[in-house]
Amino acid sequence: MLQQHLRQLTLRSGGEGFTDITAALNREIAASGLNTGLAVIACLHTSCSLTVNENADPRVLEDLAAFLRALVPQEGVKPLSGRGELRRWVHDDEGPDDMPAHIRTALTCTSLSLSFQGGRLLLGTWQAIYLWEHRAEGQQRRLTIHLIGQ
Amino acid sequence: MLQQHLRQLTLRSGGEGFTDITAALNREIAASGLNTGLAVIACLHTSCSLTVNENADPRVLEDLAAFLRALVPQEGVKPLSGRGELRRWVHDDEGPDDMPAHIRTALTCTSLSLSFQGGRLLLGTWQAIYLWEHRAEGQQRRLTIHLIGQ
Amino acid sequence: MLQQHLRQLTLRSGGEGFTDITAALNREIAASGLNTGLAVIACLHTSCSLTVNENADPRVLEDLAAFLRALVPQEGVKPLSGRGELRRWVHDDEGPDDMPAHIRTALTCTSLSLSFQGGRLLLGTWQAIYLWEHRAEGQQRRLTIHLIGQ
Repeated sequence: MLQQHLRQLTLRSGGEGFTDITAALNREIAASGLNTGLAVIACLHTSCSLTVNENADPRVLEDLAAFLRALVPQEGVKPLSGRGELRRWVHDDEGPDDMPAHIRTALTCTSLSLSFQGGRLLLGTWQAIYLWEHRAEGQQRRLTIHLIGQ
Repeated sequence: MLQQHLRQLTLRSGGEGFTDITAALNREIAASGLNTGLAVIACLHTSCSLTVNENADPRVLEDLAAFLRALVPQEGVKPLSGRGELRRWVHDDEGPDDMPAHIRTALTCTSLSLSFQGGRLLLGTWQAIYLWEHRAEGQQRRLTIHLIGQ
Repeated sequence: MLQQHLRQLTLRSGGEGFTDITAALNREIAASGLNTGLAVIACLHTSCSLTVNENADPRVLEDLAAFLRALVPQEGVKPLSGRGELRRWVHDDEGPDDMPAHIRTALTCTSLSLSFQGGRLLLGTWQAIYLWEHRAEGQQRRLTIHLIGQ
């Protein structure tokens, strides 16, 4: 019979960049006693996100971060058509890194749904799950991990 | 024992921009009688999407919308490398806002998975859930809300 | 009573572009014997993704692919603010199409959650589900399809 387990994870991010949470998620699955099921991980914030990406060459993460910085610059954006002027962010009360962080969150994922089997996440060889911090400084971050399985 | 409830929500968007659907989703959870579980919200369209973002300063939504307009302009795009010419959209039968709307949908989320507890969505302090309309004009929009819980 | 079915699907992509997997997913749902439930589809790779988009005019997919090529060019990116120089990818061991493929994956979806009813995915009229290959060459790709329903 299917059961559910809902837990919160708290972690401190190290500022803009990636924290590999794969092992922490696998520990939660092991602790639940469930063998096979669905894991839904959600981020309770609007300036960091979740992503599945390569766990091998660290330069992949470096390029990912550089891309998102170029895509959503702190100084504002010009249309990708090349036609139009720079538009600055109007939301700037919380520092120049805050509005880009909200946009970078909207372009990536607030929640991820993955299967687990044998008490572990069912991932491809090169996949890891990252909390992607978009604020410049490290933050206390809360995630939920929701397991439905047996 | 886990149960499921599957409902459709219909709403009218007000043209390009955001409709906060958090309260409507909480009403569906309350009506289901479920206390704790998983809520999956999906959008039955290809030119609007779902996003979780800040519910406090309305300028966050203003900047989000301005960013996505700049990223996917109606007139077409030039490579972000700066090398190459403007490419116009070849799909233009349904008006100049239609193809950008499909692309904006692909860059954001068609479905969201979130947990609920105590009969309410488990959200961070600053999180709200928005239907993000990408067409210029208001549209009749259908969402599914699927609850699995107890 | 709710049950789960977890299967893997293997398919060969035809190089950069889209493979419609809607019918294959509906076959898995039919084979499970479940009528109503949640389907979570996940991609076990970091250089292809999943997307829901239009199934009618093939030019929509053509424009989607052209957009993502312009957004994440092989030669690197310049800030969308227009202020700054071209930055080339530092991860380039696996060919010039590999790092763009990782980024395109991060901007789209590794997993999708959708409801099914009457033994079929509950989709809008114009929605199809695509595997979006981001590598230049065709690849063997593995997906999981996880059904929870009754």
